[in-house]
Amino acid sequence: MSVTLTPERVRLTKDLTALFEPKSIAVIGASRRPEAVGYAVMKNLISGGFTGNLYPVNPKADTIENLKSYASLLDIPDTIDLAILVVPSTTVPQLIRDCGQKGVKAVIIISAGFREIGEAGVALEKEVIDEANRQNLPILGPNCLGLINTDDNFSMNASFGRTMPKRGNIAFISQSGALCTAILDYAKGQNMGFSKFISLGNKCDLSEVHLLQYLKDDPHTDVILMYIEDLQDGWTFIQEAREITGDAKNKKPIITIKSGRTQQGAKAAASHTGSLMGSDAVYDAIFAQAGVLRADSVSEMFDLAKIFAYEPVIQGDCVAIVTNAGGPGIMATDACIRSGLSMASFHKNTTEQLKKVLPPASNISNPVDVIGDARNDRYRDAMRIAISDSNVDALVVILTPQAMTDIEDIAKAVVDAERSTNKPVVACFMGISDVSKGVDYLEEHHIPHYPFPEDTARALAAMNRYRLWTKRPRTRVKKFKVDSEKAKRMIEYAHREKITHVGTYLAMDILKAYKFPVLPYGFAGSGKEAIKVARQVGFPAVMKIVSEEIVHKFDVGGIRLNIQNVKEAKKAYDHMMRTVKKKEPKAHIKGVMLQKMADKGREVILGMNRDQQFGPILMFGLGGVYVEAFKDVTFRLAPIRELGAERMIKAIRAYPLLKGIRGEAPADLKMIEECLERLSQLACEHPLIQEIDINPLMVYSDKSGAHVVDARIVLKK
Amino acid sequence: MSVTLTPERVRLTKDLTALFEPKSIAVIGASRRPEAVGYAVMKNLISGGFTGNLYPVNPKADTIENLKSYASLLDIPDTIDLAILVVPSTTVPQLIRDCGQKGVKAVIIISAGFREIGEAGVALEKEVIDEANRQNLPILGPNCLGLINTDDNFSMNASFGRTMPKRGNIAFISQSGALCTAILDYAKGQNMGFSKFISLGNKCDLSEVHLLQYLKDDPHTDVILMYIEDLQDGWTFIQEAREITGDAKNKKPIITIKSGRTQQGAKAAASHTGSLMGSDAVYDAIFAQAGVLRADSVSEMFDLAKIFAYEPVIQGDCVAIVTNAGGPGIMATDACIRSGLSMASFHKNTTEQLKKVLPPASNISNPVDVIGDARNDRYRDAMRIAISDSNVDALVVILTPQAMTDIEDIAKAVVDAERSTNKPVVACFMGISDVSKGVDYLEEHHIPHYPFPEDTARALAAMNRYRLWTKRPRTRVKKFKVDSEKAKRMIEYAHREKITHVGTYLAMDILKAYKFPVLPYGFAGSGKEAIKVARQVGFPAVMKIVSEEIVHKFDVGGIRLNIQNVKEAKKAYDHMMRTVKKKEPKAHIKGVMLQKMADKGREVILGMNRDQQFGPILMFGLGGVYVEAFKDVTFRLAPIRELGAERMIKAIRAYPLLKGIRGEAPADLKMIEECLERLSQLACEHPLIQEIDINPLMVYSDKSGAHVVDARIVLKK
Repeated sequence: MSVTLTPERVRLTKDLTALFEPKSIAVIGASRRPEAVGYAVMKNLISGGFTGNLYPVNPKADTIENLKSYASLLDIPDTIDLAILVVPSTTVPQLIRDCGQKGVKAVIIISAGFREIGEAGVALEKEVIDEANRQNLPILGPNCLGLINTDDNFSMNASFGRTMPKRGNIAFISQSGALCTAILDYAKGQNMGFSKFISLGNKCDLSEVHLLQYLKDDPHTDVILMYIEDLQDGWTFIQEAREITGDAKNKKPIITIKSGRTQQGAKAAASHTGSLMGSDAVYDAIFAQAGVLRADSVSEMFDLAKIFAYEPVIQGDCVAIVTNAGGPGIMATDACIRSGLSMASFHKNTTEQLKKVLPPASNISNPVDVIGDARNDRYRDAMRIAISDSNVDALVVILTPQAMTDIEDIAKAVVDAERSTNKPVVACFMGISDVSKGVDYLEEHHIPHYPFPEDTARALAAMNRYRLWTKRPRTRVKKFKVDSEKAKRMIEYAHREKITHVGTYLAMDILKAYKFPVLPYGFAGSGKEAIKVARQVGFPAVMKIVSEEIVHKFDVGGIRLNIQNVKEAKKAYDHMMRTVKKKEPKAHIKGVMLQKMADKGREVILGMNRDQQFGPILMFGLGGVYVEAFKDVTFRLAPIRELGAERMIKAIRAYPLLKGIRGEAPADLKMIEECLERLSQLACEHPLIQEIDINPLMVYSDKSGAHVVDARIVLKK
Repeated sequence: MSVTLTPERVRLTKDLTALFEPKSIAVIGASRRPEAVGYAVMKNLISGGFTGNLYPVNPKADTIENLKSYASLLDIPDTIDLAILVVPSTTVPQLIRDCGQKGVKAVIIISAGFREIGEAGVALEKEVIDEANRQNLPILGPNCLGLINTDDNFSMNASFGRTMPKRGNIAFISQSGALCTAILDYAKGQNMGFSKFISLGNKCDLSEVHLLQYLKDDPHTDVILMYIEDLQDGWTFIQEAREITGDAKNKKPIITIKSGRTQQGAKAAASHTGSLMGSDAVYDAIFAQAGVLRADSVSEMFDLAKIFAYEPVIQGDCVAIVTNAGGPGIMATDACIRSGLSMASFHKNTTEQLKKVLPPASNISNPVDVIGDARNDRYRDAMRIAISDSNVDALVVILTPQAMTDIEDIAKAVVDAERSTNKPVVACFMGISDVSKGVDYLEEHHIPHYPFPEDTARALAAMNRYRLWTKRPRTRVKKFKVDSEKAKRMIEYAHREKITHVGTYLAMDILKAYKFPVLPYGFAGSGKEAIKVARQVGFPAVMKIVSEEIVHKFDVGGIRLNIQNVKEAKKAYDHMMRTVKKKEPKAHIKGVMLQKMADKGREVILGMNRDQQFGPILMFGLGGVYVEAFKDVTFRLAPIRELGAERMIKAIRAYPLLKGIRGEAPADLKMIEECLERLSQLACEHPLIQEIDINPLMVYSDKSGAHVVDARIVLKK
């Protein structure tokens, strides 16, 4: 897949109305046997209260759950919007043909026995999708749990889960069917509701991107949760997701769990970029570019879902805490600061008011400690005063169950406080048993509740990150004027000659065509030329052997640093020829490259590796020996925008080194950004390039530019 | 506080028998008013079923809860082991005197109104502790929730908490009373029990160290939990804790939450070591040296407590997973690898057996997927086979509630599997509501249960870290033969002269006396001497100005590098004198120091900062500009043992750089270790030294040693 410089919006839109909002459903493979999946689906549709017409199809039964059963889909006298297939996998292709004939508008294939079972299944799945494409039929699955739409107008539980979830404003898309059942159960336990619940299965046709497109405009959905194991197309996902999270009129946060984090599988690659780029780093890049919040665990996903589903987005990063216990107040403060929030400093008026209503031993600055014997009245006052302070962007209410704590009444006070403000209010009633009635009350009234201060802070911090995402400056992908044609000629020449590891000389030529800040350099095929070229590039100079066959130049004496004058240049040339020929007698030596030595600056690495699935991935990090030791690098899918380049630089841990510590002048960050953007353009315009390392790029102080000291380019085979 | 080289075991032992195991208790300030704390304490003692005699003391009541009330402690006709004070704070000193007179053996002061309220309280608390010391009375509190001992022989709830916890093998020590009530409630909700439950309060007399000493030998306690906000004495804590966690006959894990992590308060300090040493870094060092597991949150503390309380310690790091769902299996695998565990690779025999008992679509390698329709028989078989594999050190059982999952029967199967093996077995039944009965069964039968795969892995990983701690090699604090007397003379001279920032020359002399690998150096007071000294130290050489008044030598032209011969040395001397005198006309210039220039190696920093509370703290990290940018440093309290020095080096992120990457030779790690140990000795033997920075120590390849390039020493004022 080649990604163009400004990727066209990939038009994937499918009409999913019949899938989510059918007026009639045929369940093919409906069953009377309670242990059968075909029974569970029928039963769920009926007990879930599906509002449309239901038609069981089963040649061996006359009636299923009081409904007339049909021998075949084609026997049903009415039109069918949605067909649900719960049949042996081998019968599916024929049934898809039947669906076409019948005019069905969408299909859910619950049946397993496809790609997941190996070769035979892959073939069968291909047959299905070919047939569906012919019929222009959208298909969910196969090998999935089904789909749920809690909208009262449909009330459709087209799944074989154990539970019909409550109605709510959260949509969930899962690539694991089994996880769905667990998710439904967690949600039930926390009184959380869903708008839509979708099990993706093998994604033979519909992928997360189509579903995101549908959910973007779904008025019942305010938050989207996803569990994914892989994405087929990074860019369409990024485009769709960034539209939903940051650009649409009704922005919606997307919270994702991506599993397979520790995948050991960074394939052997010639470049640093390639070897450092594990698949997980790519997903981190995709989520960063898409504005998607990545949760590390199911529990974190739920914690985040709650606050986004129930509370308005925080408008700043300043938190006020009201607590009846000092220790947990400190814990919450710690957790807030650690996760990037600030503690609000109260206006004088606020502390004065707090002083009036709270007993003398209370702490009237933030975190406000109403002390252990506080009852709901004291909480009420403290919450009201704290939340009214204009320095406060969010309120955290902590309760420990002391002997005199009227837990339920305090829960009511929290609900009232939340209703009175447009700032987020979250609660942390610490405990399980004694606090349970209070917690139930909070959950019923949609106050985000967390059992521990740390989870509470984490959820608020995620909301703050989302705010910063939606408020970020919008920039564009720059297109520099470069000599793309010249680069193309060189790349194609090398490709024709079957040169995969392009020599430094040619690599420099390519970078020069893209106007990277390369130092003066030249080629010399003889001692005489070496003198001439050395004089042209200037001193001190570096000499490097030019030979396609020699990879480790240094080891064979093929690099000479610090050449001070023409005499040394001539001597170095002769010496190098002798030494290298002795050590690598078979290598075909073209000559040497002379280059001006770079002044000392800060070394960074810029890289690109073309991923089979996601296209060119850019890397940025601290250069030299540190790139490997610290693995202090960051990735983005190309093309990057201006802001993306800026953020890549800021994302590495060593950023303070570049910004300048101890009063040092900052590095020329603008020049690094520009180089990253040029690299992005180069990668996008020349799909034959497989890998690029610019290592090091020597960066000088602000406005003093940078120099490409060394570079390697690897072409596709 | 000066710490000697091998700190004497601090004898703090107090006899706490009467505190934990009293035969008779007087509650002074017992009350009939239900809202009074003095009522709650009485009520808890009675309803908790205290097995000894109870005596309420209240001059205003005749009877409290059917017990005769006494006007004064002294009126009680019998002997009293333990007195509990729930009275206005000002009356406490007199009551302590009464306790002495009465022969009371231990006191709990629940009353607040001491140090926590400011100056007046501090004075009152001092009066109390002076009196108690005279009486040799151990005191718990003041300002605490009380103490609980669930041992059937005492069954004592001497607290005003809401709940009497179940009996169990976990002890909890808390510096926050309010947190105690939350902890009791979490524990109740998870069916967890405690052996002892102790609220420390203000720690006027008894600190966590005394309680650890008691719990060490308590046969009812297998795991110790602590919530602490500060430690008064790092070394006594380290000694006591490392004895319990790693050396005692009955080793017990200690799990700690330390709050105040983000304390902004690293005070301004002259050295790198000082400025990088936040209080939290010191606590991390203390816990590392004590073998204490630090939990980041209350929830993590509980997760860890459960596995240690219920399961045998893991004997290796290889985990097997049995799951009925692929997605959660991947999530658990990810979490295991990320937290430092490995996935067990099964013996051939194991997979063969699994193949026999599981359906064809199952995954018979690790993680074992028994597929969604698995019932308890399939789980039973898979667990039995997996846990019998000698490559497996622990078993994780994951369940998602599918339609046909018989959750409770699977819970029973897990309990049976756990009973059949001496390897840890932990469960993760995903969900809340549907799985609740199964989870209850697991909790009743003491199977550690976690709602999410990530928590499950984290608990197992902590257990693995604890195993590694108990199995670590035991080393000693080395004592090098050095010229300590000479160092002492120099330090005392400088201190007498009120020199706090010792010049490089003197610093080198001190380090030389401790046989650090310093390069040849010498002092020159004239151009002639410069020639002589330069010849002695060798070329290339460095020249540095010697003047107490000049701190930033480089800025005033007081440093000259790369002096190649005697002629250059003379010239450099003359030039430096002129330049420096011009720029710093008022400075008193003694002359210059000449030193051989170090060869290029890997730069590290070694440092020491003497903490008021914890004594000398050692630092190690990557040197040069990176020390500040990456803050890649680690700390230990001095003195360190051999293993401690080794672990400091391994603890930094840049360790791979020192070990050698890309086939590079490793650095001379042994020499770094030795330097750290010498630094430890220097710091311990000379309490007048406030700070030391050896920056950089230039380290060469293995067995090639290292050189101190620059050093600064700051003395106490």
